[in-house]
Amino acid sequence: MSKFWSPAIESLVPYTPGEQPRIANLTKLNTNENPYPPAPAVTAVIQAFNTERLRLYPDPDASTLKQALAAEFSTETSKIFVGNGSDEVLALAFMAFFRQPKPLLMPETTYSFYDVYANLFAIEHTKIPLTSDFQIELDNYPSENGGIIFANPNAPTGVALPLSAIKTLLERNRDSVVLVDEAYVDFGAESAASLVDQFPNLLVVQTFSKSRSLAGLRIGYAIGSAELIDGLERVKNSFNSYPLDMLAIEAACASLSDKNYFEQTCAQIIATREQTRQALETLGFEVLPSATNFLFAKHRELAGSELMAYLRERNILVRHFSKPLIANYLRITVGTDTEMQLLIDTLKQHPAIETKPAP
Amino acid sequence: MSKFWSPAIESLVPYTPGEQPRIANLTKLNTNENPYPPAPAVTAVIQAFNTERLRLYPDPDASTLKQALAAEFSTETSKIFVGNGSDEVLALAFMAFFRQPKPLLMPETTYSFYDVYANLFAIEHTKIPLTSDFQIELDNYPSENGGIIFANPNAPTGVALPLSAIKTLLERNRDSVVLVDEAYVDFGAESAASLVDQFPNLLVVQTFSKSRSLAGLRIGYAIGSAELIDGLERVKNSFNSYPLDMLAIEAACASLSDKNYFEQTCAQIIATREQTRQALETLGFEVLPSATNFLFAKHRELAGSELMAYLRERNILVRHFSKPLIANYLRITVGTDTEMQLLIDTLKQHPAIETKPAP
Repeated sequence: MSKFWSPAIESLVPYTPGEQPRIANLTKLNTNENPYPPAPAVTAVIQAFNTERLRLYPDPDASTLKQALAAEFSTETSKIFVGNGSDEVLALAFMAFFRQPKPLLMPETTYSFYDVYANLFAIEHTKIPLTSDFQIELDNYPSENGGIIFANPNAPTGVALPLSAIKTLLERNRDSVVLVDEAYVDFGAESAASLVDQFPNLLVVQTFSKSRSLAGLRIGYAIGSAELIDGLERVKNSFNSYPLDMLAIEAACASLSDKNYFEQTCAQIIATREQTRQALETLGFEVLPSATNFLFAKHRELAGSELMAYLRERNILVRHFSKPLIANYLRITVGTDTEMQLLIDTLKQHPAIETKPAP
Repeated sequence: MSKFWSPAIESLVPYTPGEQPRIANLTKLNTNENPYPPAPAVTAVIQAFNTERLRLYPDPDASTLKQALAAEFSTETSKIFVGNGSDEVLALAFMAFFRQPKPLLMPETTYSFYDVYANLFAIEHTKIPLTSDFQIELDNYPSENGGIIFANPNAPTGVALPLSAIKTLLERNRDSVVLVDEAYVDFGAESAASLVDQFPNLLVVQTFSKSRSLAGLRIGYAIGSAELIDGLERVKNSFNSYPLDMLAIEAACASLSDKNYFEQTCAQIIATREQTRQALETLGFEVLPSATNFLFAKHRELAGSELMAYLRERNILVRHFSKPLIANYLRITVGTDTEMQLLIDTLKQHPAIETKPAP
């Protein structure tokens, strides 16, 4: 602690992102990045970009991107918000909606940044345990709350809720904001975006970082009632007028223009995921059902930390969380078929791992 | 107000950036953008960029940029912070340092975003009037404070303080953070960056948006003691891990690599500014001494709002602030010689403006 710091920051425990090491020949399955490049249209707009324009500020409203997203979701631009990655969108949403007299509710096991935001903005919050099979049970969320946030599919478990469960929650929770973080939704879950017109308290947050292969450009967005979007805009315009740069705005629009590429790469990742899941099961792993581009898996005999270290020594990076409830699990990003084959082959070489028939 | 908003956001009055209209043939002298393109090295890195890399997250620490900035300021990377434009750096600094029991001090007339940040984070603040000739008088800043922020050169006046005045302030104000916002310093003022090693409570904030022609890419930074930079990092890593995208990081490094281009374009803008200042004086304007890429000027007889409207009808945009103390002034960005000649010629055609010899 420094005497120059605001007293409130002493107790902050910042979020720890997955490692971004610069080592050659690394198989990087630790930060849920897409193994495929962004759509060819993205490359085209970046290569054709007239850099003389960079002397000017970008459009503070990123109107072209809002229009493209509104078309994508068959809605109006007044229901779309954009930001510097979905992390910034989430941070602004915490400021705009969750600084309430009642506590914010979140799953006990979920994206660990929620807890960090709540501490940054001094938001009282209550963590609701998952079920024993790592499901979010929305019936356990009390109606007295200052907001509800969860990821669907959840992270780092990969498990998805059906849309019907979210709708039931919304029907009985109409007085506070329900934020559904859909960072991974394009890999097989049902989006709640279709419910936005029915529920003015629903905010759906998505990102270009995973399914659109644009983690390097930092583009996130939210879909919600004009009332919620207006709240986000007020906070954003009191914080940073221009969070999205010109190249990010144009690349995001280009990505949205190529539906085929998007659908094909998502389908390929889903196919690779299911093959990998089966292969892991034959090696003695229990794998949670995943609707994401990662698998959450534990070996029946080996500790998660030991397996992570074993793989790391062999230049394969996976993510491990040293938290009691999930310490035996590895979070393994779905890469290309070749990368996943290398993972499986490397695991097979572990002296304590034997191949068994699938259960 | 919506029942879904955090109660604290009801009273927010967001910052209003200058207009970014998309009209052809507009002479845009309203947002202090650089009239020259970024350094050729910027174009080279963007054109050579392998877009396949965008699938990966950027380096959350932007280490290459911190190293380039540390070299530029002959200091260590532990004394450098980078962010999504200097606006984000300022917002994070307000969170990290100015949420104190004592009030933050700022000039009454200065960059209007300071006031907005203070309101967003519920920071009590006291505004200290400028002198009658629009100088910041640091002797008027009481020693009982929870921080001091000012722009040097100041905005929208363009007036600079000598480094000696800032040093005197720092010598008598050692217990709270002094933030010097140097967005415009490269156009003729003295930077306080050289004082960082002497004063652990000094934070200097700069930007690539003005002197480096990169407003479109959103890159700002701060120089300060490791103690202050660590405080900023804690808040940044509790808010958004990756505020700078890959292209912004690489373009910023490229810009720093071309010192000649930087010095030549700054010198050209300074020369154009001084010519324009003289020409405005012969047209009956009083012009404050500027150490920036803009001029703050009022006509002896015509109202600021009237002149702004007159110019706007003729496709020339300048900025006007409807605030009592400065309502008669126009803030005019220094463009190319051709743009400034068009401004002067257009003003000469105003029926109430006569050319007089320079005073």
